[in-house]
Amino acid sequence: MPELRKDPVTGQWVIIRTERPYRPEEFRPLASPVVTSAPCALCEGHEQATPPELLAYRTSGEGRPNGPGWRVRVVPNKFPTLRVEGELERRGHGLYDLMNGVGAHELVVESPRHTDALRSLPQAALEDVAHAYQERIIDLRRDTRFRSVVVFKPGRAMGAFSHPHTQLLATPTVPGDLRLELLNARSYVDYRERCLFCDILQQESDEEHRIVAESENVVAIVPFAARTPFETWLLPRRHLASYEHVTAAERRDVARVLGTVLQRMHAIVGDAPVGFVLHSAPFGEGDVSFFHWHWELTPAVAIPDFQPEGSGFPVNPLPPEDAARFLRGTGE
Amino acid sequence: MPELRKDPVTGQWVIIRTERPYRPEEFRPLASPVVTSAPCALCEGHEQATPPELLAYRTSGEGRPNGPGWRVRVVPNKFPTLRVEGELERRGHGLYDLMNGVGAHELVVESPRHTDALRSLPQAALEDVAHAYQERIIDLRRDTRFRSVVVFKPGRAMGAFSHPHTQLLATPTVPGDLRLELLNARSYVDYRERCLFCDILQQESDEEHRIVAESENVVAIVPFAARTPFETWLLPRRHLASYEHVTAAERRDVARVLGTVLQRMHAIVGDAPVGFVLHSAPFGEGDVSFFHWHWELTPAVAIPDFQPEGSGFPVNPLPPEDAARFLRGTGE
Repeated sequence: MPELRKDPVTGQWVIIRTERPYRPEEFRPLASPVVTSAPCALCEGHEQATPPELLAYRTSGEGRPNGPGWRVRVVPNKFPTLRVEGELERRGHGLYDLMNGVGAHELVVESPRHTDALRSLPQAALEDVAHAYQERIIDLRRDTRFRSVVVFKPGRAMGAFSHPHTQLLATPTVPGDLRLELLNARSYVDYRERCLFCDILQQESDEEHRIVAESENVVAIVPFAARTPFETWLLPRRHLASYEHVTAAERRDVARVLGTVLQRMHAIVGDAPVGFVLHSAPFGEGDVSFFHWHWELTPAVAIPDFQPEGSGFPVNPLPPEDAARFLRGTGE
Repeated sequence: MPELRKDPVTGQWVIIRTERPYRPEEFRPLASPVVTSAPCALCEGHEQATPPELLAYRTSGEGRPNGPGWRVRVVPNKFPTLRVEGELERRGHGLYDLMNGVGAHELVVESPRHTDALRSLPQAALEDVAHAYQERIIDLRRDTRFRSVVVFKPGRAMGAFSHPHTQLLATPTVPGDLRLELLNARSYVDYRERCLFCDILQQESDEEHRIVAESENVVAIVPFAARTPFETWLLPRRHLASYEHVTAAERRDVARVLGTVLQRMHAIVGDAPVGFVLHSAPFGEGDVSFFHWHWELTPAVAIPDFQPEGSGFPVNPLPPEDAARFLRGTGE
């Protein structure tokens, strides 16, 4: 008998199929990574091909701004989805609401080398990446036009560059999925006077069987109502609404657990792109203390001929407990 | 400058790109239709290959139940996502909520001929299909375990049969996207004491430039904040929450406008699958008089190398006014 499970964070009911146990090797990529040849505009030595850098980590004494010698580098997207110039104008049009497309669209270049992969970077490099996200959010939230910064990789395509990078979008409003999570977390705290995410962490630690990896400060779980096979969330143990307030120890554990989870996913799903998104509290919207930042990771894989999308219910053919067991690598 | 537009029904902000005007022929299918060879289990003459029929329209005197001679036929899905047998059990598991996967999963076979397409059916056959949806919903809502019936075609794959058919899923809870539409429609009526959808129809009729097709009873528009290129909604002019209460005249116009829109889409996007979903008021949830049933049609097309999904904001490269102009076929 299949199950209907509700995700308390997204509020969504998901159909979990249980008819037959799938094995990890039966899942196939929904998309292939876009592989472009080096050198590209994001490669070391080609710094002039991008707009001037917003942030870069260089070993002291090595290199100059917008020259080689960096470990992680953040640049404006040359083809931005939103434009950073101009005043924000909110207006109505009859019953409709709109605003002009003000925002910041940046690329966090995770490595100077074109053929690296985030999962294979050494621990120190992963910590640099986690730190760059934090520093860019701290800078962007000073801009009072912005309400939210989303850090993400598309799941189904890697964009025009196969050079390892993450996108960052600062927006004058909050994306729909994050808005819903805020509403649900708020309802939960109003009802129970406890944080929804802290309660999830407590229950998952007690039950253990949806935990993929953990460290002192960060835990990776397959959500109880995972929408897709191998969906995995990374959460800090400490109750903290905003990613930009993480400590060095937390960044270290984000790097460690993220690296571990991406390696485990790669062992199962191969080169299938892994979408990911950082959900952190918005700015300038009043109290957000009920929220708890987290990463959502979604490998783009499916069972062939099994794509029952379209009803409004996600349908997941892999029970979350099985997915977590596979990702822990503790047998099948 | 791009625009951020809010859809008042879904509540979602969408990024509408305006950098350069695309032409209809630049859009490419995101998926190919799955073509299987005839005869299949849904073909006339193979009625024994499916579970016994739930409904069929036969010209009087022609054929017997579960034999040939039908025009439209509804059968249980042999590989259902939810199971129709058993009591519905709702329960908690710690802080989580779940229920067993009770539901009905049916196939509406739109034609006895394997190679037909919904868009090319004669008017009378399209009316039969629109009528079959209605009759199945009327029957399924008698089952007190169910709260909602969703009629849909997946956008990115046609499932195991290329034989023209629609899926129908009766569920013990309301799908997440419909739940949000209900919340937004409810907020609107609470605030304005008018129906959100009726107001949209009024504004769209006044402005005209997002209208794709219209008839006495049904209007097709590209939504003001369409999430994807060529997304189109069909709405009845009369305020009616539940599709199962449509009149024969309304069914006739649903058939007429649906056929027209699918033909226009085919002229632009070719064989790209067109996802569609009927959103109608749920049952057993109290007052739903503020809702207004409608169809949402989504051709699976994109601009190559333009897939900026992942931030939580849909990004549409085609302004809705341009999409409507292309779909009306009144020049580029």
